[in-house]
Amino acid sequence: MTPGIAPVAVDAMGGDHAPAAVVHGAIDAARKGQPVILVGPEERVRGELERQRASWSLPIQVKHASEVVEMGDHPGQAMRRKKENSIRACFELVRSGEASGMVSAGNSGAVMAGAVFVLGRAGEVERPAILSVLPAVKGAPVLLDVGANVECRPLHLVQFALMGDVYSRRVQGVSRPRVAVLANGQESSKGTAVTRAAAAALERSPLRFQGYCEGRDLLEGDVDVIVTDGFTGNVILKVSESLVHLVEEALKQEITRSLQASMGFLLSKDAFRSFKKRLDYTEYGGAPLLGVNGACLIGHGRSTAKAVRSAVRAAHEFVQHQVPAKIRAKAQEFAPGALRR
Amino acid sequence: MTPGIAPVAVDAMGGDHAPAAVVHGAIDAARKGQPVILVGPEERVRGELERQRASWSLPIQVKHASEVVEMGDHPGQAMRRKKENSIRACFELVRSGEASGMVSAGNSGAVMAGAVFVLGRAGEVERPAILSVLPAVKGAPVLLDVGANVECRPLHLVQFALMGDVYSRRVQGVSRPRVAVLANGQESSKGTAVTRAAAAALERSPLRFQGYCEGRDLLEGDVDVIVTDGFTGNVILKVSESLVHLVEEALKQEITRSLQASMGFLLSKDAFRSFKKRLDYTEYGGAPLLGVNGACLIGHGRSTAKAVRSAVRAAHEFVQHQVPAKIRAKAQEFAPGALRR
Repeated sequence: MTPGIAPVAVDAMGGDHAPAAVVHGAIDAARKGQPVILVGPEERVRGELERQRASWSLPIQVKHASEVVEMGDHPGQAMRRKKENSIRACFELVRSGEASGMVSAGNSGAVMAGAVFVLGRAGEVERPAILSVLPAVKGAPVLLDVGANVECRPLHLVQFALMGDVYSRRVQGVSRPRVAVLANGQESSKGTAVTRAAAAALERSPLRFQGYCEGRDLLEGDVDVIVTDGFTGNVILKVSESLVHLVEEALKQEITRSLQASMGFLLSKDAFRSFKKRLDYTEYGGAPLLGVNGACLIGHGRSTAKAVRSAVRAAHEFVQHQVPAKIRAKAQEFAPGALRR
Repeated sequence: MTPGIAPVAVDAMGGDHAPAAVVHGAIDAARKGQPVILVGPEERVRGELERQRASWSLPIQVKHASEVVEMGDHPGQAMRRKKENSIRACFELVRSGEASGMVSAGNSGAVMAGAVFVLGRAGEVERPAILSVLPAVKGAPVLLDVGANVECRPLHLVQFALMGDVYSRRVQGVSRPRVAVLANGQESSKGTAVTRAAAAALERSPLRFQGYCEGRDLLEGDVDVIVTDGFTGNVILKVSESLVHLVEEALKQEITRSLQASMGFLLSKDAFRSFKKRLDYTEYGGAPLLGVNGACLIGHGRSTAKAVRSAVRAAHEFVQHQVPAKIRAKAQEFAPGALRR
């Protein structure tokens, strides 16, 4: 075990390619000196480690958890009924201090439910939120919430802004993050009753609030933290993923029409691949869940070994930068009384 | 004047490049046999026609309107205070029957306000909505509302679905349009209270309702009509526009890194241009405002001559296919009483 670094608990059963891809990613992380605890049915996990010829000298532990939350399971019910599930076991390792953080590419609703249930919300934070790093012309703005909270009150948006500010400063090293609320126009008369109340509270906050930003500003990189409700955030991420796919497909279609363009496509393929990397979730490995008492990375359902490895690295960074504690402190410091009910 | 086709009223003062681009587009439309009435300060419009050497034989009339709604004007106030404004004058020509429809790339809030104020809502329709045609892997699905109604009740979403169905059938020739409500997941437990109530009502409607669709389904072309509130719709359109711009910029950046890729880019440039055309609003010219008593096309603020010409053509099609009357009839026929308050 590498001294000084507590291991990250990894849900061995999470994601479409579990446990093979997860174990593979965990081995890669361990080889880079990042200790992990693989959590799942012990025999199956050990069998997979053996199959992949993991060296016994690597910093990998195995923690038994007999049950698995399926993608179709109802999150709350799964947490209550499958008490021995691997997601919950990961969170228990974090709570007891045996692990510094956790990573799961399983049922994301169950991961959120487990986080709140086992770790608890960070102090004054009412709603934990999922953060996503966006590709942008310059910088790497963060968008939250991208799916944890479908309907939000103004206080939630304000707390998303606080949490995004902490992430941007500590993890990304942005010195004074510029914060904006997503709306359908820049004028303060735009937006909904919820966004207007959130914007008014953020004006009075210690954050560097820039007012509203629009959909077109999201990828420009002129703001660092953008907050929205989890419905809109989820739709944005999914539309963007599919638009990039469409661009690629359409380019291929157009290109097969002429020999000259085909040659062009072959020659510029590397450039397209290199661009797609910027949009690729496997580079980030997962989306952090902010606002709970611990480090939690939610992986994409289609997580590959590389995504798992990146997520383990991200969880380590998250812990190193003490993100959960800082969020707790900041939410305590700025608690807009008027927005509470 | 071409016999049998009533002219389309065109707001000569609408858009960033007015009146030059608008007059240019109107001349092009007239040359293609589509009669127009240019509406704006008469001397200025006639001066522009002269400068552009428009032939007197073209089917172009000029209607004087002394005032102009600026982009920064408050829509409702502008409609009340600037009684002689060009947007309002266009709608009055439609109401009197002198024009068959109208096109404006001016202050879109003022266009919507003017439409409701002068033409009125189509029968049972509570909220007119703006429709946008999406590029897709197959087909050309329509999304509405993309900006007219920031906050929506279930009845509004249901009526957007009815209106989109009419558009898809009549203008796009889709025989039985597949209709979906946009949400953050496909399961009926997802979405907000508003989307769930709308989906339940659409289940009982005569429409071919497919349930929820997600952000990633938007561009696949497996549904023909997608409804959402104007906040989400606006954000989606703007994120998509800027993402395509980002892809292009990023490809250029990546490409300048290697000579081989540069050659590739030069060779595949035509393919990219051809793809962008599919996303280009100037091809459609404008977004129709559905649910008012008349044909109204809202142009992009940056409308070029080509966009204006396309919008005039779209307005003519809209009238030819009797879209407003069909919407009126359909909203009458299916008025879910339970959703009214």
